[in-house]
Amino acid sequence: MGGGGYRSGESPSIAAETPMSTARRLLAIPGSIRRASVSKAILRTLAEKAPAHVAIEIFELDDIPVYNQDFDRDPPAPVKLLREKITAADGLIALSPEYNHGMSGVIKNAVDWVSRPGYASILVDKPVAVFTTSESPLGGARAQGDLHKMFKSTLSRLALGREVSFGGTAKSIVDGKLVDEAQLKRAWALIESLLEEIELMRAKASL
Amino acid sequence: MGGGGYRSGESPSIAAETPMSTARRLLAIPGSIRRASVSKAILRTLAEKAPAHVAIEIFELDDIPVYNQDFDRDPPAPVKLLREKITAADGLIALSPEYNHGMSGVIKNAVDWVSRPGYASILVDKPVAVFTTSESPLGGARAQGDLHKMFKSTLSRLALGREVSFGGTAKSIVDGKLVDEAQLKRAWALIESLLEEIELMRAKASL
Amino acid sequence: MGGGGYRSGESPSIAAETPMSTARRLLAIPGSIRRASVSKAILRTLAEKAPAHVAIEIFELDDIPVYNQDFDRDPPAPVKLLREKITAADGLIALSPEYNHGMSGVIKNAVDWVSRPGYASILVDKPVAVFTTSESPLGGARAQGDLHKMFKSTLSRLALGREVSFGGTAKSIVDGKLVDEAQLKRAWALIESLLEEIELMRAKASL
Amino acid sequence: MGGGGYRSGESPSIAAETPMSTARRLLAIPGSIRRASVSKAILRTLAEKAPAHVAIEIFELDDIPVYNQDFDRDPPAPVKLLREKITAADGLIALSPEYNHGMSGVIKNAVDWVSRPGYASILVDKPVAVFTTSESPLGGARAQGDLHKMFKSTLSRLALGREVSFGGTAKSIVDGKLVDEAQLKRAWALIESLLEEIELMRAKASL
Repeated sequence: MGGGGYRSGESPSIAAETPMSTARRLLAIPGSIRRASVSKAILRTLAEKAPAHVAIEIFELDDIPVYNQDFDRDPPAPVKLLREKITAADGLIALSPEYNHGMSGVIKNAVDWVSRPGYASILVDKPVAVFTTSESPLGGARAQGDLHKMFKSTLSRLALGREVSFGGTAKSIVDGKLVDEAQLKRAWALIESLLEEIELMRAKASL
Repeated sequence: MGGGGYRSGESPSIAAETPMSTARRLLAIPGSIRRASVSKAILRTLAEKAPAHVAIEIFELDDIPVYNQDFDRDPPAPVKLLREKITAADGLIALSPEYNHGMSGVIKNAVDWVSRPGYASILVDKPVAVFTTSESPLGGARAQGDLHKMFKSTLSRLALGREVSFGGTAKSIVDGKLVDEAQLKRAWALIESLLEEIELMRAKASL
Repeated sequence: MGGGGYRSGESPSIAAETPMSTARRLLAIPGSIRRASVSKAILRTLAEKAPAHVAIEIFELDDIPVYNQDFDRDPPAPVKLLREKITAADGLIALSPEYNHGMSGVIKNAVDWVSRPGYASILVDKPVAVFTTSESPLGGARAQGDLHKMFKSTLSRLALGREVSFGGTAKSIVDGKLVDEAQLKRAWALIESLLEEIELMRAKASL
Repeated sequence: MGGGGYRSGESPSIAAETPMSTARRLLAIPGSIRRASVSKAILRTLAEKAPAHVAIEIFELDDIPVYNQDFDRDPPAPVKLLREKITAADGLIALSPEYNHGMSGVIKNAVDWVSRPGYASILVDKPVAVFTTSESPLGGARAQGDLHKMFKSTLSRLALGREVSFGGTAKSIVDGKLVDEAQLKRAWALIESLLEEIELMRAKASL
């Protein structure tokens, strides 16, 4: 991995010398839209603490309507914007709450919009890191497999690494921020894998 | 199973002598909202061909907005209506297209709305039959497991039987109707299992 | 549920007045065969603490060879014995360690042997409760869905209830026994659901 | 992808000029051990028809005993051999029959043996292609997700591409060979993705 980055498993230090032009751009989508969404809170924390060579932009899904195949080719404006943002990003972070032991309908719905046409969408070869959250100690672990299955089917590049589930959120989220250092450390380790996948895709382009 | 019903694995004959008052009421939700939805077409066909002792009502999900937990206790009117319909029904039929190897976000989103509070929602002990569809010969088989996992987590009663996937829909759907007799036969076999589950729940109530 | 049993969510008291002849017989299979198997330890604890109206017999899978379809009709003696024990039991408990985010090959292999012929095996309508375990706090939660999918496909009757995963086993297993009271309580709640399923199947037989 | 290889989606022509020393070596494990195993038959066909720059070796799992964690560090000889073969191979092909809607216990058991220690086994970064088979038209499609989940958890590199399920085997297997040209074509397309993954891993090593 290039850059003046952080080491595996450590909270990243700010690498101020990295020129922004070479920073990797990650788009992050939270799987819930309520005001005090834990998914949003975690992504905000990651965005704020990201090292200089990583720029995390959060795209809230509030305005993405329920998927209607009749509008695949001329989707509503928020869907068009989401597609543009994903296309422009070097990698994608998807963080979903666990509802009914699976990912939220909110996030599945958004991916349904941007995954067309099948096997030829903007998600092909896109590096993706998946996270889940729930109030329970399991942290939504049961929904991780669904997210992996979905992004495998879109031929995206899943970051390899230990799965990261944000549990016990009644304590770990304070004032809209994730304050659990151990969880943050594990999250950065997976994001580092995501960055490696991005470098791999750049290398692939020149094979 | 009571009634003058049909036999396992056979297309049901109309049991005209069954009084409507004792007919079992099934609510059917299609997992896509586009105009020419195959899911809607299949459910319409099942509703029309249902024997007298089974009444299938279709509830289209077009007006169910994206789930927002902030409105759990005072949801939008279409969600309230869906909850009432499910509560009143003896059983539920969920038919989803397969998108990205999973159920549609549309159907997951609808179930997210009606499955709260967890382990104590209107879905507990509700008999449910699950179907999938896709254009391919697989008929969405890869999404069946997701639907089962979801309804297992809501403590619903899944109809036991061979899974029914409606594939090859380019040929099997004609003029908005399902015309594949073999597929219909398999579907009725699973709906019969659903009816058995309903009788079982009635028996349970008197245990 | 009949009998002088325990109440939901509580550790059962011994119902000494229940005649053994009416005790429900549960067969329990542990998904690992090593000597100090945590799965075996948990099942032993449950068997010892079971109330008088429940008899839990543990069937270790050590002697079940790797599945070979050529011997479906004349399987090795240990497989024959396992089939007989399952047939005789009122219900089945399957407890698997999580390996590679799924159930153990050991337990999948055993179920492969006893699940033939498909849709017509001794597992049809058999009440089943599923548990998992791992050293991590997740307790094997990621393998639960696999077990459910498997027993759904065999048309077995899965006990409905909150999933029970035995995690943190480095602390919770002492001298070959499970000593975590909270975990035990949750396990009994699911076993009670299993007993209800058994009563339901008995009622079904007389419908 | 280097070499004088075949093009995507086409049956490969023999690239006779490729020196054997640079051929990619794939190890293929069939998920059933019966004599007339369809899994073995398909892998034999692939091995025989492989182009010169690809060498497919089949490793039958007949002698791999049921997994016992007590022998992780000193496993039985067949397990040792399997580990050596996987280590030496550039990539792995896993082909499983579908039993009870999942992969066979045979193949899960074998992977349990070779996947230790977790997150640090010989499977990390190993390119893997997954196939399934069943007599039904579904071809075991319901077991693909399990295989992906397993190899994702071992941090292996899953070949990206359309899933390939070998169905209708009563007709497609003749005299112990796969004779369905369309299925073979799809299989080669996925194996080509596997080869690309292998090249990517070689590039990664020099990043």
